[in-house]
Amino acid sequence: MKIKIQPVDPAKRRPKPADESKLVFGKTFSDHMFLMDYKAEAGWQDPRVVPYQALEMDPSAMVLHYGQGIFEGLKGYRCRDGRIHLFRPQKNWERLNRSARKLCMPEIDVAFQFEALHELLKIDKDWIPHSIGSSLYIRPTMIASEPHLGVRPAHEYLYYIITGPVAAYYPEGFNPVTIYVSDEFVRTVRGGLGEAKTMANYASSLYAAEVAKKKGFTQVLWLDGVERRFVEEVGTMNIFFRIKDELVTPPLTGSILPGITRDSVIQLAAHWGIQVHERPIEIAEVVDAIRSGDMKEVFGTGTAAVISPVAEMSYKEKSYRVQKGEVGEWSQRFYDEIVGIQYGEKEDPFGWIYEVKF
Amino acid sequence: MKIKIQPVDPAKRRPKPADESKLVFGKTFSDHMFLMDYKAEAGWQDPRVVPYQALEMDPSAMVLHYGQGIFEGLKGYRCRDGRIHLFRPQKNWERLNRSARKLCMPEIDVAFQFEALHELLKIDKDWIPHSIGSSLYIRPTMIASEPHLGVRPAHEYLYYIITGPVAAYYPEGFNPVTIYVSDEFVRTVRGGLGEAKTMANYASSLYAAEVAKKKGFTQVLWLDGVERRFVEEVGTMNIFFRIKDELVTPPLTGSILPGITRDSVIQLAAHWGIQVHERPIEIAEVVDAIRSGDMKEVFGTGTAAVISPVAEMSYKEKSYRVQKGEVGEWSQRFYDEIVGIQYGEKEDPFGWIYEVKF
Ligand SMILES: Cc1ncc(COP(=O)(O)O)c(C=O)c1O
Ligand SMILES: Cc1ncc(COP(=O)(O)O)c(C=O)c1O
Repeated sequence: MKIKIQPVDPAKRRPKPADESKLVFGKTFSDHMFLMDYKAEAGWQDPRVVPYQALEMDPSAMVLHYGQGIFEGLKGYRCRDGRIHLFRPQKNWERLNRSARKLCMPEIDVAFQFEALHELLKIDKDWIPHSIGSSLYIRPTMIASEPHLGVRPAHEYLYYIITGPVAAYYPEGFNPVTIYVSDEFVRTVRGGLGEAKTMANYASSLYAAEVAKKKGFTQVLWLDGVERRFVEEVGTMNIFFRIKDELVTPPLTGSILPGITRDSVIQLAAHWGIQVHERPIEIAEVVDAIRSGDMKEVFGTGTAAVISPVAEMSYKEKSYRVQKGEVGEWSQRFYDEIVGIQYGEKEDPFGWIYEVKF
Repeated sequence: MKIKIQPVDPAKRRPKPADESKLVFGKTFSDHMFLMDYKAEAGWQDPRVVPYQALEMDPSAMVLHYGQGIFEGLKGYRCRDGRIHLFRPQKNWERLNRSARKLCMPEIDVAFQFEALHELLKIDKDWIPHSIGSSLYIRPTMIASEPHLGVRPAHEYLYYIITGPVAAYYPEGFNPVTIYVSDEFVRTVRGGLGEAKTMANYASSLYAAEVAKKKGFTQVLWLDGVERRFVEEVGTMNIFFRIKDELVTPPLTGSILPGITRDSVIQLAAHWGIQVHERPIEIAEVVDAIRSGDMKEVFGTGTAAVISPVAEMSYKEKSYRVQKGEVGEWSQRFYDEIVGIQYGEKEDPFGWIYEVKF
């Protein structure tokens, strides 16, 4: 399929951010977007790059009623020498297709996903910020666009990619988060949609996040929906525990998102000779290890922040500080290594970097 | 707030359905829609009735990523003498507000919801079908419209109402459904969003419904997400079992939708001196009762079909026919009574009917 390009009228270019370090996440978008339609009889069609603009959606578009929508999140990095990097994008394309299968939506050929993003980055390359730490956030999205009321998989879809520059997450070094363990609200459960990157999982997180916020915590730590006993993940991050000198993280049993940063931390740890255990971990074990001092570090992993050290956890109305709230040595090391690889400042022994060449 | 009215250009009127009995559910929409915007600082504003048209949505509109959206479903009925009836609409407005609270969305004053629908029905009254059994389906919807990437409750919302004529559900008498009991997939779980009428619950039902369809069943019966042992609800209906001469239906413990038809059946049964038990019911008990013949009837309840008799159930690869698949006496009686009240053909001792007067 040939991608049509319709560049923005130069007079209508959006103003570039005056100060890259002041960008608020998710509020600034680049000049163009990629779009493509799907119809049951015809498959994917009419791929095009057009000026960033409002979508025309029928008020009965199925996504607006039945939540049939999935997305991805990745970043474009500009290295000091000007090269443009993506970090393991293939993983995002594969995860998009896994999410699509779970939601009964059509898949998109991986090579074509690369091509679509390539065309979009080419026309908007000036939007990729220049300072190390800042980046271009990329949001591929697929939604059910068919106008129809009645629950079933749609026959028409829209796939689009939007991008926007974002500031460094930690402009002045780590800013550890505090997390609230929810034993009242549940995000998802085995047999549900937890492992897909789909809107439902975020909708079900809103209420508990507001409760946490009111109590003064930045994030929610979810427990499993069956027993509310095993740790699952945090907000939009996977979670790791350093207990003594081993790393523990919950296994991918279907209810948590298979994070790409999670996978990268596991590979790096193994590479460094650190024991990693993907195993069920009870919240009681977490609390005990914090109390006894065996818990050396707790951190979240995700594309937005890479590593997010956890300073404090609240469970059943009691608060526990992890190692006096200080940032752990491993958190820093994983962060430095992954960010170093992303910006081409460190060697990439795993072949994680995909260089975008125009 | 004053509702502005912008009538459709007469030349652009949509064609009225040639044959009311041939209408496909959810595909035909009336000439107008109601719209209203919400901004965090200003509250609800700019209520208006405009021609039915595409919504302009930013591709970063939060609903398209994080599924913050809720809806309702009710019907307008035209009686033989021309009066227009709604069935317990107050319950829909209250449920919309309960859904809103669960999803951290703004509520809408109940009296104003009435007013909005009233204005819309007034301008589109000719769209309400004339034959008994057919009706005008009404879909109030609220979505997060703020352009923003990042998970949190939105600061901007759109509320709208669209309507469309629908044919009688059973033009030639009941058409019993067959249901597939899912013990692999879960719709929702205690602590989740199950009791809200929100997109997430429908998204999580798609996969299992496709599995059921491939096996030749029309609907999925959901079990509880914790033990997968207790019956919850069917597709877009609540479920009732007549065991000997008592009626059993699962209680409202947070994971199922509090159906308005469900509530009406419970009230009618009590009125008729039938014992109704809202209690947890195990799927094993259901199967045993079908086997022993104690299960006299199984039926679903919902706005679309009112009563939907169940002819057959499949659980763990075994199929069970309910009373040779024949429609039960109570199913018919509940159906006749509720439909009779809706169309003003039967007395309304409960004050369920709201007459729309223009
Ligand atoms: C629910 C959830 N878990 C985990 C992650 C981390 O995944 P990744 O490392 O691929 O960004 C994300 C975010 O992207 C997420 O939304
Ligand atoms: C999940 C679900 N359960 C039950 C119902 C029945 O509710 P009501 O009787 O209010 O239409 C519906 C449909 O409206 C539904 O979507």
